[in-house]
Amino acid sequence: MDGIRKNAPIGVFDSGVGGLTVAREIMRQLPNERIVYFGDTARVPYGNKSKDTVTRYSRQIARFLLTKEVKTIVVACNTASAYALDEIEKEIHLPMIGVVKPGAKVAAEVTKNGKIGVIATQATIDSNSYSDYIKQKNPQATVLGKACPLFVPLVEEGLLEDPVTDEIAMRYLSELIDVGIDTLILGCTHYPLIRKTIGRIMGDGVTLVNPAYETARALKRQLEERNLLNEEKIDLGTNQYQFFVSDDADKFKNFANSIIRYGILSAKTINIEEQNE
Amino acid sequence: MDGIRKNAPIGVFDSGVGGLTVAREIMRQLPNERIVYFGDTARVPYGNKSKDTVTRYSRQIARFLLTKEVKTIVVACNTASAYALDEIEKEIHLPMIGVVKPGAKVAAEVTKNGKIGVIATQATIDSNSYSDYIKQKNPQATVLGKACPLFVPLVEEGLLEDPVTDEIAMRYLSELIDVGIDTLILGCTHYPLIRKTIGRIMGDGVTLVNPAYETARALKRQLEERNLLNEEKIDLGTNQYQFFVSDDADKFKNFANSIIRYGILSAKTINIEEQNE
Repeated sequence: MDGIRKNAPIGVFDSGVGGLTVAREIMRQLPNERIVYFGDTARVPYGNKSKDTVTRYSRQIARFLLTKEVKTIVVACNTASAYALDEIEKEIHLPMIGVVKPGAKVAAEVTKNGKIGVIATQATIDSNSYSDYIKQKNPQATVLGKACPLFVPLVEEGLLEDPVTDEIAMRYLSELIDVGIDTLILGCTHYPLIRKTIGRIMGDGVTLVNPAYETARALKRQLEERNLLNEEKIDLGTNQYQFFVSDDADKFKNFANSIIRYGILSAKTINIEEQNE
Repeated sequence: MDGIRKNAPIGVFDSGVGGLTVAREIMRQLPNERIVYFGDTARVPYGNKSKDTVTRYSRQIARFLLTKEVKTIVVACNTASAYALDEIEKEIHLPMIGVVKPGAKVAAEVTKNGKIGVIATQATIDSNSYSDYIKQKNPQATVLGKACPLFVPLVEEGLLEDPVTDEIAMRYLSELIDVGIDTLILGCTHYPLIRKTIGRIMGDGVTLVNPAYETARALKRQLEERNLLNEEKIDLGTNQYQFFVSDDADKFKNFANSIIRYGILSAKTINIEEQNE
Protein backbone atom coordinates (compact mmCIF):
# COMPACT_ATOMS: atom_id res chain seq x y z
CA MET A 1 0.00 0.00 0.00
CA ASP A 2 3.04 2.25 -0.34
CA GLY A 3 2.32 5.52 -2.03
CA ILE A 4 -1.42 5.61 -1.31
CA ARG A 5 -2.36 8.87 0.40
CA LYS A 6 -4.64 8.61 3.43
CA ASN A 7 -6.43 11.79 2.47
CA ALA A 8 -7.18 10.56 -1.06
CA PRO A 9 -10.86 9.99 -1.86
CA ILE A 10 -12.70 6.67 -1.81
CA GLY A 11 -13.94 5.75 -5.30
CA VAL A 12 -17.48 4.35 -5.44
CA PHE A 13 -19.23 3.22 -8.60
CA ASP A 14 -22.55 1.80 -9.68
CA SER A 15 -24.55 1.24 -12.86
CA GLY A 16 -26.60 4.31 -11.95
CA VAL A 17 -28.21 5.81 -8.86
CA GLY A 18 -28.73 2.65 -6.77
CA GLY A 19 -25.17 2.74 -5.46
CA LEU A 20 -25.99 5.98 -3.68
CA THR A 21 -27.52 3.79 -0.94
CA VAL A 22 -23.99 2.41 -0.45
CA ALA A 23 -22.40 5.87 -0.68
CA ARG A 24 -24.88 7.10 1.94
CA GLU A 25 -23.78 4.34 4.36
CA ILE A 26 -20.12 5.22 3.77
CA MET A 27 -20.90 8.88 4.50
CA ARG A 28 -22.61 7.85 7.75
CA GLN A 29 -20.00 5.40 8.95
CA LEU A 30 -16.92 7.26 7.66
CA PRO A 31 -17.88 10.94 7.93
CA ASN A 32 -14.28 12.11 7.60
CA GLU A 33 -13.67 10.56 4.16
CA ARG A 34 -13.77 12.09 0.70
CA ILE A 35 -15.81 10.24 -1.95
CA VAL A 36 -15.72 10.29 -5.74
CA TYR A 37 -18.91 8.61 -7.03
CA PHE A 38 -19.48 7.46 -10.60
CA GLY A 39 -22.92 6.38 -11.86
CA ASP A 40 -23.09 4.85 -15.35
CA THR A 41 -26.46 6.41 -16.09
CA ALA A 42 -25.95 6.31 -19.88
CA ARG A 43 -25.73 2.50 -19.86
CA VAL A 44 -27.86 1.57 -16.84
CA PRO A 45 -29.02 -1.10 -15.98
CA TYR A 46 -26.33 -3.81 -15.72
CA GLY A 47 -28.58 -6.48 -14.22
CA ASN A 48 -29.75 -8.00 -17.49
CA LYS A 49 -26.45 -7.73 -19.35
CA SER A 50 -23.65 -10.24 -19.95
CA LYS A 51 -20.51 -10.82 -17.91
CA ASP A 52 -18.31 -9.57 -20.77
CA THR A 53 -20.21 -6.31 -21.11
CA VAL A 54 -20.42 -5.63 -17.37
CA THR A 55 -16.68 -6.35 -17.03
CA ARG A 56 -15.78 -4.01 -19.90
CA TYR A 57 -17.89 -1.22 -18.39
CA SER A 58 -16.43 -1.77 -14.90
CA ARG A 59 -12.90 -1.66 -16.31
CA GLN A 60 -13.57 1.70 -17.99
CA ILE A 61 -14.98 3.08 -14.75
CA ALA A 62 -12.07 1.80 -12.64
CA ARG A 63 -9.70 3.57 -15.05
CA PHE A 64 -11.68 6.77 -14.70
CA LEU A 65 -11.57 6.55 -10.89
CA LEU A 66 -7.78 6.00 -11.04
CA THR A 67 -7.47 9.38 -12.77
CA LYS A 68 -9.13 10.84 -9.65
CA GLU A 69 -6.33 9.29 -7.53
CA VAL A 70 -8.68 7.33 -5.27
CA LYS A 71 -7.18 5.23 -2.46
CA THR A 72 -9.64 2.35 -2.82
CA ILE A 73 -12.56 1.40 -5.07
CA VAL A 74 -15.95 0.30 -3.76
CA VAL A 75 -18.04 -1.58 -6.33
CA ALA A 76 -21.46 -0.48 -5.10
CA CYS A 77 -23.33 -2.46 -7.77
CA ASN A 78 -24.20 -6.07 -7.00
CA THR A 79 -24.06 -7.14 -10.65
CA ALA A 80 -20.62 -5.57 -11.19
CA SER A 81 -19.40 -7.05 -7.88
CA ALA A 82 -20.62 -10.48 -8.95
CA TYR A 83 -19.34 -10.38 -12.54
CA ALA A 84 -16.37 -8.04 -12.72
CA LEU A 85 -14.70 -7.42 -9.34
CA ASP A 86 -12.34 -10.44 -9.32
CA GLU A 87 -11.02 -9.64 -12.78
CA ILE A 88 -10.63 -5.87 -12.33
CA GLU A 89 -8.90 -6.40 -8.96
CA LYS A 90 -6.14 -8.35 -10.71
CA GLU A 91 -5.62 -5.56 -13.24
CA ILE A 92 -5.34 -2.52 -10.99
CA HIS A 93 -3.00 -2.10 -8.06
CA LEU A 94 -5.43 -0.79 -5.50
CA PRO A 95 -7.55 -2.37 -2.76
CA MET A 96 -11.11 -3.01 -3.92
CA ILE A 97 -14.26 -4.09 -2.16
CA GLY A 98 -17.62 -5.16 -3.55
CA VAL A 99 -21.07 -5.51 -1.99
CA VAL A 100 -21.40 -9.28 -2.46
CA LYS A 101 -18.76 -10.63 -0.03
CA PRO A 102 -19.73 -8.44 2.99
CA GLY A 103 -23.43 -9.30 2.51
CA ALA A 104 -22.71 -13.01 2.04
CA LYS A 105 -20.43 -13.15 5.10
CA VAL A 106 -23.03 -11.69 7.45
CA ALA A 107 -25.80 -13.91 6.08
CA ALA A 108 -23.62 -17.01 6.59
CA GLU A 109 -23.02 -15.91 10.19
CA VAL A 110 -26.54 -14.93 11.25
CA THR A 111 -28.55 -17.82 9.79
CA LYS A 112 -29.74 -20.32 12.39
CA ASN A 113 -31.41 -22.93 10.21
CA GLY A 114 -28.83 -22.65 7.41
CA LYS A 115 -31.43 -21.65 4.81
CA ILE A 116 -30.54 -18.36 3.11
CA GLY A 117 -32.41 -16.56 0.35
CA VAL A 118 -30.87 -14.10 -2.12
CA ILE A 119 -32.96 -11.71 -4.19
CA ALA A 120 -31.12 -9.83 -6.92
CA THR A 121 -30.94 -9.09 -10.65
CA GLN A 122 -30.92 -11.96 -13.14
CA ALA A 123 -27.19 -11.44 -13.75
CA THR A 124 -26.27 -11.55 -10.05
CA ILE A 125 -28.33 -14.72 -9.56
CA ASP A 126 -26.84 -16.33 -12.69
CA SER A 127 -23.31 -15.60 -11.43
CA ASN A 128 -23.86 -17.71 -8.26
CA SER A 129 -21.56 -15.27 -6.44
CA TYR A 130 -23.61 -14.95 -3.28
CA SER A 131 -24.12 -18.69 -3.11
CA ASP A 132 -20.40 -19.42 -3.65
CA TYR A 133 -19.23 -17.00 -0.93
CA ILE A 134 -21.86 -18.15 1.56
CA LYS A 135 -20.80 -21.76 1.09
CA GLN A 136 -17.14 -20.85 1.59
CA LYS A 137 -18.09 -19.40 4.99
CA ASN A 138 -20.75 -21.94 5.88
CA PRO A 139 -20.52 -25.17 3.85
CA GLN A 140 -23.73 -26.50 5.46
CA ALA A 141 -25.84 -23.61 4.20
CA THR A 142 -28.53 -23.98 1.56
CA VAL A 143 -28.86 -20.93 -0.68
CA LEU A 144 -31.89 -20.17 -2.82
CA GLY A 145 -31.54 -17.34 -5.35
CA LYS A 146 -34.47 -15.52 -6.94
CA ALA A 147 -34.21 -12.88 -9.66
CA CYS A 148 -36.69 -10.02 -9.17
CA PRO A 149 -36.47 -7.99 -12.42
CA LEU A 150 -39.53 -5.82 -11.71
CA PHE A 151 -38.32 -4.46 -8.35
CA VAL A 152 -35.95 -1.88 -9.87
CA PRO A 153 -38.54 -0.37 -12.25
CA LEU A 154 -41.17 -0.36 -9.48
CA VAL A 155 -38.78 1.48 -7.14
CA GLU A 156 -37.79 3.92 -9.88
CA GLU A 157 -41.49 4.61 -10.51
CA GLY A 158 -41.80 5.49 -6.84
CA LEU A 159 -44.21 2.62 -6.03
CA LEU A 160 -42.45 1.92 -2.72
CA GLU A 161 -45.67 1.15 -0.88
CA ASP A 162 -48.30 0.09 -3.35
CA PRO A 163 -50.64 -2.86 -3.92
CA VAL A 164 -48.86 -3.63 -7.22
CA THR A 165 -45.47 -3.85 -5.50
CA ASP A 166 -47.06 -6.07 -2.82
CA GLU A 167 -48.50 -8.39 -5.46
CA ILE A 168 -45.22 -8.69 -7.40
CA ALA A 169 -43.22 -9.16 -4.18
CA MET A 170 -45.58 -11.93 -3.08
CA ARG A 171 -45.03 -13.76 -6.37
CA TYR A 172 -41.24 -13.43 -6.17
CA LEU A 173 -40.94 -14.27 -2.48
CA SER A 174 -43.43 -17.12 -2.12
CA GLU A 175 -40.95 -19.87 -2.99
CA LEU A 176 -38.46 -18.46 -0.48
CA ILE A 177 -41.17 -18.57 2.18
CA ASP A 178 -42.12 -22.11 1.14
CA VAL A 179 -38.61 -23.48 1.73
CA GLY A 180 -38.44 -21.77 5.14
CA ILE A 181 -35.42 -19.45 4.81
CA ASP A 182 -34.54 -17.51 7.98
CA THR A 183 -32.20 -14.99 6.30
CA LEU A 184 -32.72 -12.93 3.14
CA ILE A 185 -30.05 -10.90 1.36
CA LEU A 186 -31.31 -7.75 -0.42
CA GLY A 187 -28.85 -8.32 -3.26
CA CYS A 188 -29.53 -5.23 -5.37
CA THR A 189 -28.95 -1.65 -4.29
CA HIS A 190 -32.56 -0.63 -4.98
CA TYR A 191 -34.15 -3.28 -2.77
CA PRO A 192 -33.51 -1.64 0.63
CA LEU A 193 -35.90 1.09 -0.59
CA ILE A 194 -38.76 -1.47 -0.46
CA ARG A 195 -37.45 -3.12 2.68
CA LYS A 196 -40.74 -2.52 4.51
CA THR A 197 -42.78 -4.39 1.89
CA ILE A 198 -40.29 -7.26 1.75
CA GLY A 199 -40.08 -7.45 5.55
CA ARG A 200 -43.86 -7.53 5.94
CA ILE A 201 -44.23 -10.36 3.42
CA MET A 202 -41.34 -12.43 4.80
CA GLY A 203 -42.46 -11.98 8.41
CA ASP A 204 -40.58 -11.32 11.66
CA GLY A 205 -38.80 -14.69 11.64
CA VAL A 206 -36.64 -13.70 8.64
CA THR A 207 -33.55 -11.49 9.05
CA LEU A 208 -33.02 -9.07 6.17
CA VAL A 209 -29.37 -8.43 5.28
CA ASN A 210 -28.55 -5.09 3.63
CA PRO A 211 -25.19 -5.38 1.80
CA ALA A 212 -24.89 -1.56 1.62
CA TYR A 213 -24.60 -1.36 5.41
CA GLU A 214 -22.27 -4.37 5.66
CA THR A 215 -20.05 -3.04 2.88
CA ALA A 216 -19.52 0.30 4.61
CA ARG A 217 -18.57 -1.60 7.80
CA ALA A 218 -16.18 -3.87 5.92
CA LEU A 219 -14.66 -0.86 4.14
CA LYS A 220 -14.02 0.84 7.49
CA ARG A 221 -12.25 -2.28 8.80
CA GLN A 222 -10.22 -2.60 5.62
CA LEU A 223 -9.05 1.02 5.75
CA GLU A 224 -8.19 0.69 9.46
CA GLU A 225 -6.16 -2.47 8.89
CA ARG A 226 -4.23 -0.87 6.06
CA ASN A 227 -3.76 2.37 8.01
CA LEU A 228 -5.56 4.30 5.29
CA LEU A 229 -8.25 6.19 7.24
CA ASN A 230 -8.15 9.92 6.61
CA GLU A 231 -6.73 11.85 9.55
CA GLU A 232 -6.92 15.33 8.07
CA LYS A 233 -9.74 17.64 9.04
CA ILE A 234 -12.16 18.07 6.16
CA ASP A 235 -14.06 21.27 5.55
CA LEU A 236 -17.55 19.91 4.97
CA GLY A 237 -19.16 21.45 1.96
CA THR A 238 -15.99 22.13 0.04
CA ASN A 239 -15.10 19.22 -2.14
CA GLN A 240 -15.75 16.25 0.08
CA TYR A 241 -18.19 14.53 -2.27
CA GLN A 242 -17.82 14.59 -6.03
CA PHE A 243 -20.31 12.98 -8.39
CA PHE A 244 -19.77 11.96 -12.01
CA VAL A 245 -22.23 10.33 -14.40
CA SER A 246 -22.24 9.23 -18.03
CA ASP A 247 -25.68 10.71 -18.85
CA ASP A 248 -27.35 14.00 -17.92
CA ALA A 249 -25.99 15.44 -14.66
CA ASP A 250 -29.02 17.53 -13.66
CA LYS A 251 -31.40 14.59 -13.78
CA PHE A 252 -28.97 12.62 -11.61
CA LYS A 253 -28.67 15.46 -9.10
CA ASN A 254 -32.42 15.64 -8.60
CA PHE A 255 -32.74 11.93 -7.90
CA ALA A 256 -29.54 11.78 -5.85
CA ASN A 257 -30.66 14.56 -3.57
CA SER A 258 -33.75 12.51 -2.71
CA ILE A 259 -31.53 9.66 -1.48
CA ILE A 260 -28.68 11.64 0.06
CA ARG A 261 -30.18 14.66 1.70
CA TYR A 262 -27.00 16.68 1.78
CA GLY A 263 -23.70 16.84 0.04
CA ILE A 264 -24.57 16.70 -3.66
CA LEU A 265 -23.11 20.05 -4.54
CA SER A 266 -22.25 19.22 -8.10
CA ALA A 267 -22.43 16.41 -10.64
CA LYS A 268 -20.55 16.31 -13.93
CA THR A 269 -21.08 14.34 -17.09
CA ILE A 270 -18.11 12.49 -18.58
CA ASN A 271 -17.80 10.27 -21.68
CA ILE A 272 -17.06 6.94 -20.06
CA GLU A 273 -16.64 5.15 -23.41
CA GLU A 274 -13.38 7.00 -23.90
CA GLN A 275 -11.78 5.42 -20.81
CA ASN A 276 -9.87 2.76 -22.70
CA GLU A 277 -6.24 1.72 -22.65
CA MET B 1 -29.87 8.65 -54.93
CA ASP B 2 -27.20 7.89 -57.49
CA GLY B 3 -24.92 5.07 -56.52
CA ILE B 4 -27.33 3.32 -54.14
CA ARG B 5 -27.76 -0.33 -55.13
CA LYS B 6 -31.32 -1.66 -55.22
CA ASN B 7 -30.20 -5.02 -53.93
CA ALA B 8 -28.41 -3.50 -50.93
CA PRO B 9 -29.91 -4.33 -47.52
CA ILE B 10 -32.24 -2.13 -45.48
CA GLY B 11 -30.60 -1.10 -42.19
CA VAL B 12 -32.87 -1.25 -39.14
CA PHE B 13 -31.83 -0.32 -35.60
CA ASP B 14 -33.27 -0.17 -32.14
CA SER B 15 -32.11 0.16 -28.54
CA GLY B 16 -32.61 -3.60 -28.16
CA VAL B 17 -35.14 -6.21 -29.17
CA GLY B 18 -38.28 -4.05 -29.43
CA GLY B 19 -37.42 -2.94 -32.96
CA LEU B 20 -37.88 -6.52 -34.10
CA THR B 21 -41.61 -5.76 -34.20
CA VAL B 22 -40.74 -3.21 -36.90
CA ALA B 23 -38.35 -5.59 -38.68
CA ARG B 24 -41.11 -8.21 -38.67
CA GLU B 25 -43.51 -5.81 -40.41
CA ILE B 26 -40.85 -4.99 -43.02
CA MET B 27 -40.31 -8.72 -43.63
CA ARG B 28 -44.05 -9.17 -44.13
CA GLN B 29 -44.64 -6.17 -46.36
CA LEU B 30 -41.34 -6.31 -48.26
CA PRO B 31 -40.52 -10.01 -48.46
CA ASN B 32 -37.96 -9.54 -51.21
CA GLU B 33 -35.67 -7.21 -49.24
CA ARG B 34 -32.48 -7.91 -47.32
CA ILE B 35 -32.27 -6.54 -43.76
CA VAL B 36 -29.33 -5.77 -41.48
CA TYR B 37 -30.65 -5.30 -37.95
CA PHE B 38 -28.71 -3.78 -35.06
CA GLY B 39 -29.95 -3.96 -31.44
CA ASP B 40 -28.02 -1.96 -28.85
CA THR B 41 -28.54 -4.57 -26.14
CA ALA B 42 -25.46 -3.49 -24.15
CA ARG B 43 -26.90 0.00 -23.58
CA VAL B 44 -30.65 -0.67 -23.64
CA PRO B 45 -32.98 1.06 -22.75
CA TYR B 46 -32.91 4.50 -24.38
CA GLY B 47 -36.29 5.66 -23.07
CA ASN B 48 -35.01 7.20 -19.84
CA LYS B 49 -31.81 8.70 -21.24
CA SER B 50 -30.96 12.18 -22.49
CA LYS B 51 -31.13 13.57 -26.01
CA ASP B 52 -27.32 13.93 -26.16
CA THR B 53 -26.72 10.33 -25.17
CA VAL B 54 -29.38 8.87 -27.48
CA THR B 55 -28.02 10.97 -30.36
CA ARG B 56 -24.44 9.83 -29.75
CA TYR B 57 -25.53 6.19 -29.66
CA SER B 58 -27.66 6.57 -32.80
CA ARG B 59 -24.74 8.19 -34.64
CA GLN B 60 -22.44 5.26 -33.78
CA ILE B 61 -25.05 2.80 -34.98
CA ALA B 62 -25.70 4.69 -38.24
CA ARG B 63 -21.94 4.58 -38.91
CA PHE B 64 -21.91 0.85 -38.29
CA LEU B 65 -24.83 0.31 -40.68
CA LEU B 66 -23.03 2.37 -43.34
CA THR B 67 -20.16 -0.14 -43.20
CA LYS B 68 -22.77 -2.77 -44.18
CA GLU B 69 -23.60 -0.70 -47.29
CA VAL B 70 -27.30 -0.37 -46.51
CA LYS B 71 -29.53 1.52 -48.97
CA THR B 72 -31.68 3.17 -46.29
CA ILE B 73 -31.85 3.29 -42.49
CA VAL B 74 -35.02 2.62 -40.50
CA VAL B 75 -34.89 3.98 -36.95
CA ALA B 76 -37.12 1.35 -35.32
CA CYS B 77 -36.84 2.90 -31.85
CA ASN B 78 -39.35 5.61 -30.93
CA THR B 79 -36.94 7.36 -28.56
CA ALA B 80 -34.15 7.48 -31.16
CA SER B 81 -36.64 8.61 -33.84
CA ALA B 82 -37.83 11.40 -31.55
CA TYR B 83 -34.42 12.58 -30.32
CA ALA B 84 -31.83 11.73 -32.95
CA LEU B 85 -33.29 11.17 -36.42
CA ASP B 86 -33.34 14.79 -37.60
CA GLU B 87 -29.71 15.33 -36.63
CA ILE B 88 -28.32 12.05 -37.99
CA GLU B 89 -30.21 12.51 -41.27
CA LYS B 90 -28.29 15.75 -41.87
CA GLU B 91 -24.96 14.01 -41.29
CA ILE B 92 -25.28 10.95 -43.51
CA HIS B 93 -26.15 10.91 -47.19
CA LEU B 94 -28.80 8.22 -47.20
CA PRO B 95 -32.60 8.21 -46.98
CA MET B 96 -33.77 7.57 -43.40
CA ILE B 97 -37.15 6.88 -41.89
CA GLY B 98 -38.23 6.76 -38.26
CA VAL B 99 -41.31 5.36 -36.55
CA VAL B 100 -42.67 8.67 -35.24
CA LYS B 101 -43.72 10.43 -38.46
CA PRO B 102 -45.61 7.48 -40.04
CA GLY B 103 -47.48 6.85 -36.77
CA ALA B 104 -48.26 10.55 -36.25
CA LYS B 105 -49.46 10.96 -39.85
CA VAL B 106 -51.98 8.12 -39.64
CA ALA B 107 -53.25 9.27 -36.25
CA ALA B 108 -53.80 12.80 -37.59
CA GLU B 109 -55.78 11.32 -40.49
CA VAL B 110 -57.98 8.82 -38.66
CA THR B 111 -59.06 10.88 -35.66
CA LYS B 112 -62.66 12.09 -35.86
CA ASN B 113 -62.93 14.20 -32.73
CA GLY B 114 -59.36 15.56 -33.00
CA LYS B 115 -58.30 14.15 -29.62
CA ILE B 116 -55.24 11.93 -29.90
CA GLY B 117 -53.36 10.14 -27.13
CA VAL B 118 -49.71 9.06 -27.27
CA ILE B 119 -48.23 6.50 -24.89
CA ALA B 120 -44.45 6.14 -24.98
CA THR B 121 -41.24 6.31 -22.96
CA GLN B 122 -40.51 9.38 -20.85
CA ALA B 123 -37.94 10.56 -23.41
CA THR B 124 -40.32 10.27 -26.37
CA ILE B 125 -43.03 12.16 -24.46
CA ASP B 126 -40.54 14.84 -23.32
CA SER B 127 -39.40 15.37 -26.94
CA ASN B 128 -42.94 16.37 -28.05
CA SER B 129 -42.16 14.76 -31.42
CA TYR B 130 -45.46 13.00 -31.89
CA SER B 131 -47.37 16.09 -30.86
CA ASP B 132 -45.35 18.36 -33.19
CA TYR B 133 -45.84 16.11 -36.26
CA ILE B 134 -49.53 15.57 -35.57
CA LYS B 135 -50.11 19.32 -35.36
CA GLN B 136 -48.24 19.86 -38.63
CA LYS B 137 -50.72 17.51 -40.30
CA ASN B 138 -53.79 18.52 -38.33
CA PRO B 139 -53.46 21.90 -36.59
CA GLN B 140 -56.87 21.45 -34.90
CA ALA B 141 -55.80 18.29 -33.10
CA THR B 142 -55.31 18.09 -29.33
CA VAL B 143 -52.54 15.68 -28.30
CA LEU B 144 -52.15 14.20 -24.83
CA GLY B 145 -48.92 12.34 -24.11
CA LYS B 146 -48.47 9.87 -21.27
CA ALA B 147 -45.20 8.17 -20.31
CA CYS B 148 -45.68 4.51 -19.32
CA PRO B 149 -42.28 3.46 -17.89
CA LEU B 150 -43.49 0.14 -16.45
CA PHE B 151 -44.87 -1.27 -19.71
CA VAL B 152 -41.46 -2.30 -21.10
CA PRO B 153 -40.36 -4.22 -17.97
CA LEU B 154 -43.81 -5.85 -17.70
CA VAL B 155 -43.61 -7.00 -21.34
CA GLU B 156 -40.04 -8.22 -20.89
CA GLU B 157 -41.16 -10.20 -17.83
CA GLY B 158 -43.77 -11.86 -20.06
CA LEU B 159 -46.78 -10.43 -18.14
CA LEU B 160 -48.67 -9.78 -21.39
CA GLU B 161 -52.03 -10.76 -19.93
CA ASP B 162 -51.92 -10.38 -16.20
CA PRO B 163 -53.88 -8.58 -13.46
CA VAL B 164 -50.79 -6.51 -12.61
CA THR B 165 -50.45 -5.30 -16.19
CA ASP B 166 -54.19 -4.52 -16.20
CA GLU B 167 -53.86 -2.47 -13.00
CA ILE B 168 -50.84 -0.50 -14.22
CA ALA B 169 -52.45 0.06 -17.64
CA MET B 170 -55.61 1.36 -15.97
CA ARG B 171 -53.59 3.90 -13.98
CA TYR B 172 -51.66 5.10 -17.03
CA LEU B 173 -54.64 5.20 -19.38
CA SER B 174 -57.33 6.67 -17.14
CA GLU B 175 -56.52 10.30 -17.91
CA LEU B 176 -56.58 9.55 -21.65
CA ILE B 177 -60.03 8.00 -21.22
CA ASP B 178 -61.16 11.00 -19.15
CA VAL B 179 -60.36 13.50 -21.90
CA GLY B 180 -62.17 11.35 -24.48
CA ILE B 181 -59.44 10.58 -27.03
CA ASP B 182 -60.63 8.56 -30.05
CA THR B 183 -57.13 7.60 -31.30
CA LEU B 184 -54.16 6.19 -29.37
CA ILE B 185 -50.63 5.83 -30.70
CA LEU B 186 -48.65 2.89 -29.29
CA GLY B 187 -45.47 4.98 -29.27
CA CYS B 188 -42.97 2.36 -28.07
CA THR B 189 -42.03 -0.81 -29.91
CA HIS B 190 -42.94 -3.04 -26.96
CA TYR B 191 -46.49 -1.78 -26.58
CA PRO B 192 -48.08 -3.67 -29.50
CA LEU B 193 -47.26 -6.82 -27.51
CA ILE B 194 -49.84 -5.73 -24.89
CA ARG B 195 -52.24 -4.37 -27.49
CA LYS B 196 -55.07 -6.61 -26.25
CA THR B 197 -54.89 -5.24 -22.71
CA ILE B 198 -54.66 -1.64 -23.92
CA GLY B 199 -57.52 -2.15 -26.39
CA ARG B 200 -59.79 -3.69 -23.76
CA ILE B 201 -59.21 -0.81 -21.34
CA MET B 202 -59.61 1.92 -23.98
CA GLY B 203 -62.75 0.32 -25.46
CA ASP B 204 -63.98 -0.14 -29.02
CA GLY B 205 -64.40 3.57 -29.66
CA VAL B 206 -60.65 4.18 -29.65
CA THR B 207 -58.49 3.38 -32.69
CA LEU B 208 -55.04 2.02 -31.79
CA VAL B 209 -52.25 3.10 -34.14
CA ASN B 210 -49.21 0.80 -34.41
CA PRO B 211 -46.24 2.79 -35.79
CA ALA B 212 -44.40 -0.45 -36.67
CA TYR B 213 -47.05 -1.29 -39.28
CA GLU B 214 -47.28 2.29 -40.59
CA THR B 215 -43.50 2.57 -40.83
CA ALA B 216 -43.19 -0.55 -42.99
CA ARG B 217 -45.89 0.87 -45.29
CA ALA B 218 -44.16 4.25 -45.47
CA LEU B 219 -40.83 2.56 -46.15
CA LYS B 220 -42.34 0.61 -49.04
CA ARG B 221 -43.73 3.83 -50.57
CA GLN B 222 -40.39 5.60 -50.07
CA LEU B 223 -38.42 2.83 -51.78
CA GLU B 224 -40.95 2.68 -54.66
CA GLU B 225 -40.78 6.44 -55.22
CA ARG B 226 -36.98 6.41 -55.25
CA ASN B 227 -36.92 3.30 -57.44
CA LEU B 228 -34.98 1.43 -54.82
CA LEU B 229 -37.04 -1.76 -54.37
CA ASN B 230 -34.99 -4.89 -54.80
CA GLU B 231 -35.68 -6.64 -58.11
CA GLU B 232 -33.24 -9.52 -57.75
CA LYS B 233 -34.46 -12.93 -56.70
CA ILE B 234 -33.36 -13.70 -53.15
CA ASP B 235 -32.56 -17.20 -51.98
CA LEU B 236 -34.41 -17.30 -48.69
CA GLY B 237 -32.33 -18.68 -45.89
CA THR B 238 -29.00 -17.57 -47.28
CA ASN B 239 -28.08 -14.19 -46.01
CA GLN B 240 -31.33 -12.28 -46.29
CA TYR B 241 -31.49 -11.26 -42.64
CA GLN B 242 -28.43 -10.39 -40.59
CA PHE B 243 -28.56 -9.48 -36.92
CA PHE B 244 -25.96 -7.62 -34.88
CA VAL B 245 -26.07 -6.68 -31.20
CA SER B 246 -23.77 -4.96 -28.72
CA ASP B 247 -24.30 -7.51 -25.91
CA ASP B 248 -24.52 -11.31 -25.88
CA ALA B 249 -25.71 -12.72 -29.23
CA ASP B 250 -27.15 -16.02 -27.99
CA LYS B 251 -29.47 -14.34 -25.51
CA PHE B 252 -30.69 -12.05 -28.29
CA LYS B 253 -31.27 -14.96 -30.65
CA ASN B 254 -33.49 -16.77 -28.17
CA PHE B 255 -35.68 -13.73 -27.60
CA ALA B 256 -35.65 -12.70 -31.25
CA ASN B 257 -36.83 -16.09 -32.40
CA SER B 258 -39.89 -15.72 -30.19
CA ILE B 259 -40.86 -12.51 -32.04
CA ILE B 260 -39.76 -13.42 -35.57
CA ARG B 261 -40.53 -17.05 -36.05
CA TYR B 262 -38.13 -17.55 -38.91
CA GLY B 263 -35.08 -15.98 -40.36
CA ILE B 264 -32.80 -15.48 -37.38
CA LEU B 265 -30.03 -17.69 -38.66
CA SER B 266 -27.22 -15.89 -36.93
CA ALA B 267 -26.54 -12.94 -34.64
CA LYS B 268 -23.13 -11.43 -33.99
CA THR B 269 -21.82 -9.22 -31.21
CA ILE B 270 -19.91 -6.07 -32.17
CA ASN B 271 -18.31 -3.34 -30.03
CA ILE B 272 -20.53 -0.37 -30.91
CA GLU B 273 -18.49 2.07 -28.79
CA GLU B 274 -15.71 1.85 -31.36
CA GLN B 275 -17.89 3.29 -34.15
CA ASN B 276 -16.59 6.82 -33.92
CA GLU B 277 -15.25 9.18 -36.53
